[in-house]
Amino acid sequence: MKDRIHNFSAGPAVLPLAVVEKVRENLVNYEGSGLGVMEMSHRGPLFETIIGEAEACLRRLLQLDNTFAVLFATGGATNQFSMVPMNLLLPGMVGDYIITGTWAEKAYAEAKKFGEVAVAASSEAERFRSIPKEFRLSPRSAYLHFTSNNTIVGSQFRHEPDANGTPLICDASSDFLHKPLAMSRYGLVYAGAQKNLGPAGVTIVIIRRDLLERCPEQLPIMLDYRTYTNHGSLYNTPPTFPIYVTGAVLQWIEALGGLEEMERRNNEKAALLYARLDRSDFYRSVVDPSDRSVMNVTFRIHDHALEDKFLVEAQARGLDGLQGHRSVGGMRASIYNAFPREGVVALIEFMDDFEQRFG
Amino acid sequence: MKDRIHNFSAGPAVLPLAVVEKVRENLVNYEGSGLGVMEMSHRGPLFETIIGEAEACLRRLLQLDNTFAVLFATGGATNQFSMVPMNLLLPGMVGDYIITGTWAEKAYAEAKKFGEVAVAASSEAERFRSIPKEFRLSPRSAYLHFTSNNTIVGSQFRHEPDANGTPLICDASSDFLHKPLAMSRYGLVYAGAQKNLGPAGVTIVIIRRDLLERCPEQLPIMLDYRTYTNHGSLYNTPPTFPIYVTGAVLQWIEALGGLEEMERRNNEKAALLYARLDRSDFYRSVVDPSDRSVMNVTFRIHDHALEDKFLVEAQARGLDGLQGHRSVGGMRASIYNAFPREGVVALIEFMDDFEQRFG
Repeated sequence: MKDRIHNFSAGPAVLPLAVVEKVRENLVNYEGSGLGVMEMSHRGPLFETIIGEAEACLRRLLQLDNTFAVLFATGGATNQFSMVPMNLLLPGMVGDYIITGTWAEKAYAEAKKFGEVAVAASSEAERFRSIPKEFRLSPRSAYLHFTSNNTIVGSQFRHEPDANGTPLICDASSDFLHKPLAMSRYGLVYAGAQKNLGPAGVTIVIIRRDLLERCPEQLPIMLDYRTYTNHGSLYNTPPTFPIYVTGAVLQWIEALGGLEEMERRNNEKAALLYARLDRSDFYRSVVDPSDRSVMNVTFRIHDHALEDKFLVEAQARGLDGLQGHRSVGGMRASIYNAFPREGVVALIEFMDDFEQRFG
Repeated sequence: MKDRIHNFSAGPAVLPLAVVEKVRENLVNYEGSGLGVMEMSHRGPLFETIIGEAEACLRRLLQLDNTFAVLFATGGATNQFSMVPMNLLLPGMVGDYIITGTWAEKAYAEAKKFGEVAVAASSEAERFRSIPKEFRLSPRSAYLHFTSNNTIVGSQFRHEPDANGTPLICDASSDFLHKPLAMSRYGLVYAGAQKNLGPAGVTIVIIRRDLLERCPEQLPIMLDYRTYTNHGSLYNTPPTFPIYVTGAVLQWIEALGGLEEMERRNNEKAALLYARLDRSDFYRSVVDPSDRSVMNVTFRIHDHALEDKFLVEAQARGLDGLQGHRSVGGMRASIYNAFPREGVVALIEFMDDFEQRFG
């Protein structure tokens, strides 16, 4: 029986140990109620408090006012790839997409099914190793969609694009709440929970309420944002346990000092790792330095043939999940909010040692 | 701190204590891997084994051959209300629906958005207190849809309708796996997990593969059955933890003796409770005796004014979740697979005592 190892998984990803232990305590008997937390009615007072506190905590962290609605949906970000255009891309309008990687491409391809779309900018020609600094909005822009962090290549927007009046829509699945967010700049933000927020199975959507007026009739009921906003995400049984765990993670963030503290921690962890990468030519980051992700640190070994050995030895040392996405290869250290600094230090020690032996 | 109480919740519902305890053991460190079960990649070998074993166990329990595909979806049965007609109700065909309660009505209303539908039979005139014994298929029937168990009123099909060649589609959310199922009679069966199967957040769909040929192009990607069948339910991140717990429940069923043993236990529990109801006129079952549900036993007290007192006293005795659905009032004891016989006995003792004092 191993102790917990350093879990660099890109998602579902490591959760704060304090949260996992709290969840464990409540699994058989939630706060002395006599009911397990997986086993309670979504219409009962216990779960109403759980979902209400999760939303309230999220609102405090983001300083969200009532111009925004908070939804707990399912189907992951991929389901939002459909819901965004089905709800918000009216006939005669154009959905503008900034293409910075595979997930942005998928969002764009899905939106094509439901209306007119345009590429506002793309870094595909640079194999997504940078973030476009300029983009073009359509005259009849319905919204501008971007993917704030690109898990596969390891790039990230440092600042959100200035959408210049058109609603800004963000797939923030892999960096949501990693730092404070100027929500007043956004029309809609969505995030699958399983990277920075909680376990897989729940997707948080924050939508500016005035956009709900666009939603057409006759949508599939679970793909209509109003099904959630009109019923407090309780039209049908929501994923109660994933919502509970997500709420516990939100409370953990708040207790540590909120999003400013998350930003400080994340920047520190990423700076340590990128400094190690830049220290020699043995390891290489392939992303433009100004666009590097603080969530997914990707790197290669100058001699690619050494990478398999690197991964096998890392695994043996309890550094798990470092293989890069199957579409690009190499290595990827996913160091989301809950990933501890000690794990980054352990990885750097191993990288030093490996370089010494094979450099 | 109370011990676990008798949890009659209609869903999310009680899980087998042995399963909850096993899950608790694996929450921080799954089978000594060093990774928590909520925190592992859905593309890694550990989760591949989890989802593979869940499907294999389900296939053994139902003796499913490869003419059927098994999917793990999200959005609950409500999402299936859309997916069934969007995937299977082709232009020129008619979706036939047997209306036996609120959930069947909702499935029918949703299907209207996507094609032509017809009421094959309805017990609405009897306020859903019986199951129609006859029904009429449309000449161009796409499928016949029914709701095998009606959680609100507490009625249940004793046998599936004979669909006479048209694909039979069943919303089995509230009684799936409560007894052996003659899957060869079905085209598609779906069930939200949170009653008889596991925690909320995953929906099991079993579909006869030949029906997939009907699926049109350009569906929202997560509403297209082929997105699941073509990728082993791993097109995007599935609800990994709910799938894990559901798999553990399936293994629990198998270890106890499979669906025959579930049927024996469920029939025994329900028989005890209905015998108590029928013993005097103090309590009343409102459902036709031949159509009574073995999953949701609903009842009234002849003097309705006593019901609030009954519920308050029951709660105080650790009999939780007995209030009827808000649309019908009265009492409802949900006694799904995992609900233990002792809980039924405890309820009967309380009912005896209550009648003695107020009868």
